[in-house]
Amino acid sequence: MKEFVVGVDVGGQTTKIGVVDARGDVLSQTIIRTDTYGTDAAAYIAALADAVKDSVAQSGKTMDDIRGIGVGAPNGNYYTGEVAFAPNLAWAASAAVPFSKMLSEALDGMPVSLTNDANAAAVGEMAYGAARGMKNFIMITLGTGVGSGIVIDGKVVYGHDGFAGELGHVTVVRQNGRACGCGRHGCLEAYCSAIGVARTAREWLDATDEPSSLRDVENISSKDIFDAARTGDALAIRVFEYTGTILGRAFADFIAFSAPEAIVLFGGLARAKEFLYEPIVRAMNENVLKIWKDKVQVVFSQLKESDAAILGASALAWEL
Amino acid sequence: MKEFVVGVDVGGQTTKIGVVDARGDVLSQTIIRTDTYGTDAAAYIAALADAVKDSVAQSGKTMDDIRGIGVGAPNGNYYTGEVAFAPNLAWAASAAVPFSKMLSEALDGMPVSLTNDANAAAVGEMAYGAARGMKNFIMITLGTGVGSGIVIDGKVVYGHDGFAGELGHVTVVRQNGRACGCGRHGCLEAYCSAIGVARTAREWLDATDEPSSLRDVENISSKDIFDAARTGDALAIRVFEYTGTILGRAFADFIAFSAPEAIVLFGGLARAKEFLYEPIVRAMNENVLKIWKDKVQVVFSQLKESDAAILGASALAWEL
Repeated sequence: MKEFVVGVDVGGQTTKIGVVDARGDVLSQTIIRTDTYGTDAAAYIAALADAVKDSVAQSGKTMDDIRGIGVGAPNGNYYTGEVAFAPNLAWAASAAVPFSKMLSEALDGMPVSLTNDANAAAVGEMAYGAARGMKNFIMITLGTGVGSGIVIDGKVVYGHDGFAGELGHVTVVRQNGRACGCGRHGCLEAYCSAIGVARTAREWLDATDEPSSLRDVENISSKDIFDAARTGDALAIRVFEYTGTILGRAFADFIAFSAPEAIVLFGGLARAKEFLYEPIVRAMNENVLKIWKDKVQVVFSQLKESDAAILGASALAWEL
Repeated sequence: MKEFVVGVDVGGQTTKIGVVDARGDVLSQTIIRTDTYGTDAAAYIAALADAVKDSVAQSGKTMDDIRGIGVGAPNGNYYTGEVAFAPNLAWAASAAVPFSKMLSEALDGMPVSLTNDANAAAVGEMAYGAARGMKNFIMITLGTGVGSGIVIDGKVVYGHDGFAGELGHVTVVRQNGRACGCGRHGCLEAYCSAIGVARTAREWLDATDEPSSLRDVENISSKDIFDAARTGDALAIRVFEYTGTILGRAFADFIAFSAPEAIVLFGGLARAKEFLYEPIVRAMNENVLKIWKDKVQVVFSQLKESDAAILGASALAWEL
């Protein structure tokens, strides 16, 4: 009986590996660097395969106990098993890496299922978190970027090519929009990611003389703004109101698409729930069609952040 | 063997009823008025039930040959079988009419399946039209309003409440957007419906002295603008360029959601293909993420317009 799975969360800096049982308990965790292999995808995959074996051994199991490996990775494609042109992964920045195939071969044919990190988070939230029992919801990940995983009728939407759910790159500002990492302008991500929030604060500090504790901070991060807001800094609080308003308006359009039961927020920036929730819900309900007014929940992830990505990725492996 | 179905297309002015075989041939068609029953839903349904019987008799079949009835109606809800708060249907404008149940009862328990008109059109296009063989596409209906039917993995998306796919009501202009029939401002429908196109022309004629054959037309309709464009009228052609550009930008956002293989256009305004196609495709590819550039088809319905709505509605009945 293969009663365990391995979840792998590939981030820009580190990769987290965990052995998970059917109840969603993480039995062991291992971390390796993602960013020390340059463009050598094979070297990274070899290190990852070793780390998987280590993690399985640490959990007291053997590879024979493992049903499969689920991987969440930026630009991971569920259909092709490739990680393709992911700006934050040097070994996949300018190539389509056949990730699933390589990892499976390095582990004696162990089945591997891959998707992007936001889809993995959606699966995890559905299996173990705030979306348990929901069949229609949209997961929005607020991290360095803004990602999304869309669930319709209990299934993640992959679309024709496996790349569905890039809601961080809908256009929210048509005129003079901010440059986005994707090469376009005015994307949701350019305003509502951790980087976007920091940029909003810097722009406002530069444009006014308004006093703010943030003036004393070098290289302002979203964490700094959160800390300032908690001490009552008016500018910092308004940065979150602005961010929440843009998110809420965008959510109103997303609702017109798939009529979800809830929008689930996850990621580092979602920790600023106390400042984001109210403006998001207000802007969403002001902008949504009457039939959905006050009908769609906005909920925040209930998963422990260190476990969530591994759990989400591992949930993919149960389908193998 | 029940080898035939009935398709019913409920429009604001007329309701079309047709008997359809498995190949998609419409064996007979009947039309009744939709708008002569005031708020008396029961009277309308009774007349519709009679028309169904007439149409079946005309086709040389009996009610025993009919597997079921598929209905496409504005604001029709697939889950509840209700037509609820449809502004253009007096008998359902301020109530939720249990349409499927009433029609079924009026026809001795014949099964009835109901959805909104755009979803019905999407089903028809998938079964018999431009989307044959496609599993992921978005149907956009350009008529008096702008409707949509979204197909993912071969199935129409209904969402949590049955109302998914209201893409005519995403916000395309945030500042000083035009008033929309839904009570909000800046909706896609306010710009890209037949009514929106006529409004664009009138606004431009009022704001400038540019010569145009449209200046001689009272109560300009989208058909007048189409006719003027075909005679080379520069303003009329620009109206379609503007409309197509707004559509193409919106489509870029829709693609980020569900990564469709194609966007299929249907409805009266889609007849202006020769003026709309190029600006739509240009704006869409200028605004879409790089991974989708030049990858998503824009196609126009291949169904004869008089048959399409009936075929779409009838296709629902095969699932009964």
